[in-house]
Amino acid sequence: MKLGFVSAILADLELEAVLELAAEIGYGCVEVMCWPKGKAERRYAGVTHLDVSGFDAGQAAQVKELQEQLGVTISGLGYYPNPLAPDAAEAQVYVDHIKQVILAAELLDIPVVNTFIGRDWTQSVDANWPRFEQTWKPLVAFAEDHGRKIAIENCPMFFSKDEWPGGKNMATSPAIWRRMFDSIPSTSFGLNFDPSHFVWQRMDYVAPLREFSDRLFHLHAKDARVDVQRLNQVGILANPLEYHAPKLPGLGDVDWGAFFAALTDTGYSGPLCVEVEDRAYEGSLENRTASLVQTHTFLRQYMGPDR
Amino acid sequence: MKLGFVSAILADLELEAVLELAAEIGYGCVEVMCWPKGKAERRYAGVTHLDVSGFDAGQAAQVKELQEQLGVTISGLGYYPNPLAPDAAEAQVYVDHIKQVILAAELLDIPVVNTFIGRDWTQSVDANWPRFEQTWKPLVAFAEDHGRKIAIENCPMFFSKDEWPGGKNMATSPAIWRRMFDSIPSTSFGLNFDPSHFVWQRMDYVAPLREFSDRLFHLHAKDARVDVQRLNQVGILANPLEYHAPKLPGLGDVDWGAFFAALTDTGYSGPLCVEVEDRAYEGSLENRTASLVQTHTFLRQYMGPDR
Amino acid sequence: MKLGFVSAILADLELEAVLELAAEIGYGCVEVMCWPKGKAERRYAGVTHLDVSGFDAGQAAQVKELQEQLGVTISGLGYYPNPLAPDAAEAQVYVDHIKQVILAAELLDIPVVNTFIGRDWTQSVDANWPRFEQTWKPLVAFAEDHGRKIAIENCPMFFSKDEWPGGKNMATSPAIWRRMFDSIPSTSFGLNFDPSHFVWQRMDYVAPLREFSDRLFHLHAKDARVDVQRLNQVGILANPLEYHAPKLPGLGDVDWGAFFAALTDTGYSGPLCVEVEDRAYEGSLENRTASLVQTHTFLRQYMGPDR
Amino acid sequence: MKLGFVSAILADLELEAVLELAAEIGYGCVEVMCWPKGKAERRYAGVTHLDVSGFDAGQAAQVKELQEQLGVTISGLGYYPNPLAPDAAEAQVYVDHIKQVILAAELLDIPVVNTFIGRDWTQSVDANWPRFEQTWKPLVAFAEDHGRKIAIENCPMFFSKDEWPGGKNMATSPAIWRRMFDSIPSTSFGLNFDPSHFVWQRMDYVAPLREFSDRLFHLHAKDARVDVQRLNQVGILANPLEYHAPKLPGLGDVDWGAFFAALTDTGYSGPLCVEVEDRAYEGSLENRTASLVQTHTFLRQYMGPDR
Amino acid sequence: MKLGFVSAILADLELEAVLELAAEIGYGCVEVMCWPKGKAERRYAGVTHLDVSGFDAGQAAQVKELQEQLGVTISGLGYYPNPLAPDAAEAQVYVDHIKQVILAAELLDIPVVNTFIGRDWTQSVDANWPRFEQTWKPLVAFAEDHGRKIAIENCPMFFSKDEWPGGKNMATSPAIWRRMFDSIPSTSFGLNFDPSHFVWQRMDYVAPLREFSDRLFHLHAKDARVDVQRLNQVGILANPLEYHAPKLPGLGDVDWGAFFAALTDTGYSGPLCVEVEDRAYEGSLENRTASLVQTHTFLRQYMGPDR
Amino acid sequence: MKLGFVSAILADLELEAVLELAAEIGYGCVEVMCWPKGKAERRYAGVTHLDVSGFDAGQAAQVKELQEQLGVTISGLGYYPNPLAPDAAEAQVYVDHIKQVILAAELLDIPVVNTFIGRDWTQSVDANWPRFEQTWKPLVAFAEDHGRKIAIENCPMFFSKDEWPGGKNMATSPAIWRRMFDSIPSTSFGLNFDPSHFVWQRMDYVAPLREFSDRLFHLHAKDARVDVQRLNQVGILANPLEYHAPKLPGLGDVDWGAFFAALTDTGYSGPLCVEVEDRAYEGSLENRTASLVQTHTFLRQYMGPDR
Repeated sequence: MKLGFVSAILADLELEAVLELAAEIGYGCVEVMCWPKGKAERRYAGVTHLDVSGFDAGQAAQVKELQEQLGVTISGLGYYPNPLAPDAAEAQVYVDHIKQVILAAELLDIPVVNTFIGRDWTQSVDANWPRFEQTWKPLVAFAEDHGRKIAIENCPMFFSKDEWPGGKNMATSPAIWRRMFDSIPSTSFGLNFDPSHFVWQRMDYVAPLREFSDRLFHLHAKDARVDVQRLNQVGILANPLEYHAPKLPGLGDVDWGAFFAALTDTGYSGPLCVEVEDRAYEGSLENRTASLVQTHTFLRQYMGPDR
Repeated sequence: MKLGFVSAILADLELEAVLELAAEIGYGCVEVMCWPKGKAERRYAGVTHLDVSGFDAGQAAQVKELQEQLGVTISGLGYYPNPLAPDAAEAQVYVDHIKQVILAAELLDIPVVNTFIGRDWTQSVDANWPRFEQTWKPLVAFAEDHGRKIAIENCPMFFSKDEWPGGKNMATSPAIWRRMFDSIPSTSFGLNFDPSHFVWQRMDYVAPLREFSDRLFHLHAKDARVDVQRLNQVGILANPLEYHAPKLPGLGDVDWGAFFAALTDTGYSGPLCVEVEDRAYEGSLENRTASLVQTHTFLRQYMGPDR
Repeated sequence: MKLGFVSAILADLELEAVLELAAEIGYGCVEVMCWPKGKAERRYAGVTHLDVSGFDAGQAAQVKELQEQLGVTISGLGYYPNPLAPDAAEAQVYVDHIKQVILAAELLDIPVVNTFIGRDWTQSVDANWPRFEQTWKPLVAFAEDHGRKIAIENCPMFFSKDEWPGGKNMATSPAIWRRMFDSIPSTSFGLNFDPSHFVWQRMDYVAPLREFSDRLFHLHAKDARVDVQRLNQVGILANPLEYHAPKLPGLGDVDWGAFFAALTDTGYSGPLCVEVEDRAYEGSLENRTASLVQTHTFLRQYMGPDR
Repeated sequence: MKLGFVSAILADLELEAVLELAAEIGYGCVEVMCWPKGKAERRYAGVTHLDVSGFDAGQAAQVKELQEQLGVTISGLGYYPNPLAPDAAEAQVYVDHIKQVILAAELLDIPVVNTFIGRDWTQSVDANWPRFEQTWKPLVAFAEDHGRKIAIENCPMFFSKDEWPGGKNMATSPAIWRRMFDSIPSTSFGLNFDPSHFVWQRMDYVAPLREFSDRLFHLHAKDARVDVQRLNQVGILANPLEYHAPKLPGLGDVDWGAFFAALTDTGYSGPLCVEVEDRAYEGSLENRTASLVQTHTFLRQYMGPDR
Repeated sequence: MKLGFVSAILADLELEAVLELAAEIGYGCVEVMCWPKGKAERRYAGVTHLDVSGFDAGQAAQVKELQEQLGVTISGLGYYPNPLAPDAAEAQVYVDHIKQVILAAELLDIPVVNTFIGRDWTQSVDANWPRFEQTWKPLVAFAEDHGRKIAIENCPMFFSKDEWPGGKNMATSPAIWRRMFDSIPSTSFGLNFDPSHFVWQRMDYVAPLREFSDRLFHLHAKDARVDVQRLNQVGILANPLEYHAPKLPGLGDVDWGAFFAALTDTGYSGPLCVEVEDRAYEGSLENRTASLVQTHTFLRQYMGPDR
Repeated sequence: MKLGFVSAILADLELEAVLELAAEIGYGCVEVMCWPKGKAERRYAGVTHLDVSGFDAGQAAQVKELQEQLGVTISGLGYYPNPLAPDAAEAQVYVDHIKQVILAAELLDIPVVNTFIGRDWTQSVDANWPRFEQTWKPLVAFAEDHGRKIAIENCPMFFSKDEWPGGKNMATSPAIWRRMFDSIPSTSFGLNFDPSHFVWQRMDYVAPLREFSDRLFHLHAKDARVDVQRLNQVGILANPLEYHAPKLPGLGDVDWGAFFAALTDTGYSGPLCVEVEDRAYEGSLENRTASLVQTHTFLRQYMGPDR
């Protein structure tokens, strides 16, 4: 298992500086954000550490050399839009860009592209299903053709009013994952699993590490803390951010000993990337760097050195 | 506190037979269903033990005498439609019938009418609010004019796909109750509280008994059991009936000792009506009667005789 | 084991009416209050169902006949003053009256007299000890001479400001009981154990049922509920009633299944008397009678019929 | 579901008196012990309320009439030997008697015969398996031929030194049940499930009620309490009775609300027989009768009247 | 947040050596003890790392330079007497010395002085209140005049017999803090909060971090472990040290993840000083240094580097 | 307390390389395996880092110098056979080799020899006892004569079928330890305690640290995780490895904060050696080294530097 972080938190640094910081702290890899250049549409989105439009073999060689020099690998390319957005034209833009990310990953010999399934959040899962198959069958086939794997993060993308009621990503639970893998049984189609999303959904985040061990292509290390007093006021029908908050690993409700015990039992040997979305550590670059140092210290006691 | 039951479970009996059964088992009161005559639109709805259309003083006298003879009182009249249904004409039908229930309650000297706030379930709470005020300010005023109280049940009316995503009744949480009572501060506007809805919403169902003690006009005794194994498969974003089930009191997750302790501490002296929605006890009249006998036995140990 | 109640809750009834009510509800015994006639000094104290001053063989014969007629026995005579009150004259009054209660018990063939050790509440346990020995050695010897047992209740008598800081009865914990029985090893000196006092003291109330099984002469059935939200505001250094309340059995934090399991394991065959101090059931005689009916129903499911 | 009890606790009464007592307390059925006449070999074994040797149609008619008269049915015939005893001759005696019990059940129109699989307790489960198949395939076929069902109790029959290490009945866990039903898939082969045996084996006793719902032919209602302090001294490698004790329902660690919730969910409609093995209620007939009264009161609050 | 320690544990080192050790281990600050020179009156008291009597600008310049050189700041000056001691003359000595500590803090540009409110431990909180106001209103005003903040530690100073019953510091709970800040609403009057004191008081130590976030001027990092077996013997009416022990962070019952999560949520940016009172780490300087190294390692994983 | 590891995990390294690796990672000691040269009979057994047959003063001097050079001490010599094996000749071989290990420890000035009591696993504890005394009385006397201590590990040596039913080491619980020390009260006879074996035996692993503090000669740091879902399938009568797994410290169910709190309270100052038996960290030397690095990081936060 290799410890890394998601580059989105360092939006103000260039790729080289990101990898240098990783090396300095002791991280072995980084998930690199590949949004199209332009204005960010939501917090942590829109970060472009690698511009995949027009990305070519020459640029790829430079990035490969950078990894070699610093001893830090790129664990995956990340781009998290809503490819099932209700507006078909908008959705197509997302799908087209995912293809470009896949092509860049191929040039870079990076095995995994991380993204969302998406969802028309005003419609039920059933209602979204035909369009899911229509959109994703060709996309997964495209990834297969180019020797890449697609890892879908299990984030519900439902935190506040704008995403109410269904959230912008359907891949939220084992029940839906099973349906996904039934519809598209390709072995190139899997998960980028983040235990924090199961905390507030009140789900066991350890059992899936066993059941879906051959679908785990990438992992996120994030924690979440449920605020019981707030929950007693608003109940689980409220928007989730009304009663919980994303936190750094160790500051939330995840039992990391149990999490790593399961990963070591199943022999997971892929990347685990810290995703900093704890508002208490935003702001200055110093604060965000501190969050990466702290989490590195915290997680190493459970996972040891990279191997 | 007086122990009763909700008459809906005995749809195939006439009012007199319902009250006789109550007396026989040992119940002191009954909440009587007052749906308009016609076809039921959902389980337990559409039951008409008292036909309020054209209800007059003569009929009222008969019903009063029946109560006296049998020693069983009517704790409240119940009618649970969606007065904020998206179709304005449909909503108006519901509002008009609520008024008729209020008038019947006045004729019968019954203090409370139990119902739902309703909701356009495709819209957010905020989006529903203007219409809530528009609909309910005059309705509450109407109840006040006729000396009756409106008790809103806290049922989310969100159990399955048809009610997705918002459910058909907004009055689901203390946070929303506070907003309701801010908008319409009338002392005739209160709650018909059922702890089972808080079980799957993961909320403390004891604290509100204290905070809202002066708004508790009526109570339902129902239990609910969360199925942890199912929940681990689907998470709280699934439809609630995918991971929990309504159960008879004692067969679910409610701590009835704590529930009654709080009620006795605050001096609640109103009705508590068992609502049978446990599928295991449906079907034959014998089964449904058995459920009322069992629950009567179970609850009396915590609340003692009526007083 | 025989189920009874403490007569203090029925201060407004004569002894005969108390025993009749017991028989009617199904209780097999009653602990009868024997305060001297006069004004009560605190809630539930000062009740005189049996006036022991000048009590003679003739009166005793009448009381015995009453028990026989109604099939209800007197489980013990109860009088709970502070025999270690700082004012020596006041303390002497209490001691003298305890002796009269012992003599009455002898005349009535009642094996147990229930009372408190007492305490100068402004002094430490150590500082009270010499006077404890001085007062109690002769008192226990007196009981022995008259063939009676002394059962000390484990109530700290520390609930509010007037009893701050030490409470008016030292016999609050196993550690102190061991010291008591070391000082006065008489087999006529034992306990009237009430589990509710251990709830807010955060102590295991089941283990002592085993360790002190040969010291258990009488038991009280009372429950208590700790209010966690209040406790979080005031902490255990506050007066105990600021964060907990006495409740009827079943409405508090005692695990009655475990309690009775231990009693049946050790073969306890003495009385268990319900002590009603739940403020929610005070007031009218109807309310207080209801509390006795409810608790009788609740406890019989764990202890069955008297035997 | 019908509430009954296992007749073994009333060894000193004749069948008629047993059924009369059942009727008097309110039980709807009784599991009747059918050991061969002779000396009991262990506690509660060797009881003969129905002597099946030479049992004929005439005797059957009398027993049927007795049931009709008293309104109490016989839920099953019970005989719990070790049909896989190491001594082949001894085992054959047991097998032969089981056949006689089956024939008696046929004459009496009683659907179920309750027994044990047995085990050579000095051998592993694997080592016992060939003999299990050899013994039980013909026995189950015999039951099928006579229209009866075999219900195997899940008691490990490992409580003390004589049964060390393997116990005298292999049917202790879902894993082994699956193996049993794979070996002998007959629908006449099922379970007489008792949750108390899962308590000290630290197993979920609710999940099997769902998974094996079509194998549940009979149920025992017994409770068990683990003694944590003893367990800390001896660990689970000790003999089980060194750290736990069988108790009456409600005095142990079983969550009866959850137990009945599952049974009602799956629609279990067979018998549930209280098995009294709580040493605190042994001895006099009065004590044992009291245990049946108490448990009847306790369980009815969760299951209501028979239906 | 800056991690430091309380200098009292290094009574045998001079200030310079204390700061050097802090720098060497990685601590960013130290709370420096300022007791008057003389004999210590209780464990950890009486330590004088800075002698404030006659402290002048020249000495202050030296201490400032020392901080600069070593990169370690002084987080606050600490002096913890009982300014409400029953003997008025004794109390005046304490008050006078607190003023001198304030003046020294002013000269050193150190924002906070840490101390106790005090208490006449033989009197109730109410009885102490007039004297509290009389003593503290001028003291807080004095601090305001000199631009310093007073941070009151929440230690009950009730551990053993000499401090029985009330303890020597009233500022033990949120309820009393609210009363303090009502009496003296100055924004220069706040808290030096230590979660360990809430562990044995059974209070939520996380909620106050939110409610009193603007009153938190300084924090202590200490842990405490409740010994359940001892507690079962003596109950919470015993002296607290009879059933709990102060421990190093990580060896007690505090959930440090939750503690730091709340601090980061509210944006606490002040000092957090380890207070070593774990008897297992007393004795040799090597032992005490080891305790500081261990705790530094333990806490950094939850708080990261200073920032 | 000194942190070390058990050398068995590094079977492919020579003693010098083992000690060098210890020094490099930061361990202060190593428990060195002393099996006779030859083929290993079970996982982790048969490792020979020190060949004690024919071990002489010259070799001892070399090993001592090695320790000095590297700053790493040998905490104990380890050899874990079954000295009560049913085959008397086999058992004698084990006993003879234990004596040789004792002699080597004497030459090396190493105070402790770690081993097992052994057991005829097909016989009860009682049946083994005479032979235990016969074998161990002279062995302990031999150790005493040579100034060494015998530390018995509490491993049940019952994990799989071959060791069924009794396991190959009787020293599994406090109850049996008390019996051992009654039979052989020598102060040279004690324990090498490993908390992980108590996890799946469901025993309190903290209390024995206090009760047996003067018998603790050596400690193992291993963790274990019970798999609740597996346990629900097989129960505690299954072989233990069917429902639990040994894990690295921090990845199992041990509460290490409580463990170290007790050790520091009782002043334990001996060695604590990490025993790696987590299958997830077997295989390559890199993996096994990583496990030692990770565990060193994890445990230091609770125990600090060696002292």
